[in-house]
Amino acid sequence: MYLHHHPFCPHSRFVRLLLAEYGLEPELVEERVWERRPGFLALNPSGETPVIVEEMAASVPGAFIIAEYLDETRGLALGTHRLLPEDPAGRVEVRRLTQWFNEKMYVESTEPLVRERIHKRYMSREQGGGSPDATSLRMARANLRYHLKYIGWLAKARKWLAGERLSQADLAAAAHLSVADYLGDVPWDEDEHARDWYARIKSRPTFRALLTESIPGMPPSKTYADLDF
Amino acid sequence: MYLHHHPFCPHSRFVRLLLAEYGLEPELVEERVWERRPGFLALNPSGETPVIVEEMAASVPGAFIIAEYLDETRGLALGTHRLLPEDPAGRVEVRRLTQWFNEKMYVESTEPLVRERIHKRYMSREQGGGSPDATSLRMARANLRYHLKYIGWLAKARKWLAGERLSQADLAAAAHLSVADYLGDVPWDEDEHARDWYARIKSRPTFRALLTESIPGMPPSKTYADLDF
Repeated sequence: MYLHHHPFCPHSRFVRLLLAEYGLEPELVEERVWERRPGFLALNPSGETPVIVEEMAASVPGAFIIAEYLDETRGLALGTHRLLPEDPAGRVEVRRLTQWFNEKMYVESTEPLVRERIHKRYMSREQGGGSPDATSLRMARANLRYHLKYIGWLAKARKWLAGERLSQADLAAAAHLSVADYLGDVPWDEDEHARDWYARIKSRPTFRALLTESIPGMPPSKTYADLDF
Repeated sequence: MYLHHHPFCPHSRFVRLLLAEYGLEPELVEERVWERRPGFLALNPSGETPVIVEEMAASVPGAFIIAEYLDETRGLALGTHRLLPEDPAGRVEVRRLTQWFNEKMYVESTEPLVRERIHKRYMSREQGGGSPDATSLRMARANLRYHLKYIGWLAKARKWLAGERLSQADLAAAAHLSVADYLGDVPWDEDEHARDWYARIKSRPTFRALLTESIPGMPPSKTYADLDF
């Protein structure tokens, strides 16, 4: 299996965590989506990471569709560790939160953080590169506090974000936070429930590969790879 | 079952078409999302339509999650008319296109059309009301031509947009087009394949309820309710 991804795309990180929890080890193919590589556009006309490709099967594009596909083709094998629960109401809640993090938190916070602080370093002027926009960053950081608070509120009331069991929703939230954490943008002091929950998920062996990623010339924050942050 | 919707929200229309194909007749509750009604926010913290609510069950928010929920709870009953196919690859393709229309076409075209031409009539200055922004409208119309062309390209190669069978993807595309068609913004002359496909789907009895909607002081285009347009 191949995963077309970018190491600091939160949706790609979500899928890497998913695949690791399923015990799958994909070959990684790095995509810089702003280059609009024709071979990649043929796999996914929308031009966005992540995409998974299995031998003898069509490509599967996008976080939500990949999560559903993995549940349908490998979900039962996970037994009680299944990442989408069996009951319809439980599935609604997991999907609602997964979408909340992958769409709302992404648009309001992690997408601008990654764009301004990481992608722009690699983009040419024509592609939209240059120095970070201070207003975008300020708004993204303010929104991050609000999302951290929501995560803390969920983590206080429940064992995992969507209920009694680890689910896709935890992996989505953690994927987004991990990118912001690399950049040192998460105000961990502000919410101990969110921090305790993140410490638990970050200690899972499936998280380890993400914690070894780095950007040349831009070391991670002190909390990033520290399991006892 | 209740459906919290707005008559010209394309996602709400998609869910009305879905429910009709499943033979379900919800009670309609109109929401003006910009008013942020507290009772509605309690149902869906993201504050967006559509949301369905069944007696004795949690509320189900958002087009994608509602579509999955209906497939899980009522899909088998549709037999060969099921709106998500049985095979994983078929499901990937239906979800990919459904998401394409509900997200990409929405952001690039139908959301700005509805916002500028319909919602702004009802919004106060503080809520963002006023006269339509000409630049937004021009871009939305240009993007609509591109999406119409994509629909035509799919309809030329396949019986229905995602393959041999009517699926969620057809209902999503038709829901978005129907809103633009009410406004007279669809250049039907430019693609006969898209037009023929739309004529087929618009003639379904399940489409009828949408064609009776109207906006006071803003009659529909000539093509809107005409099955032989």
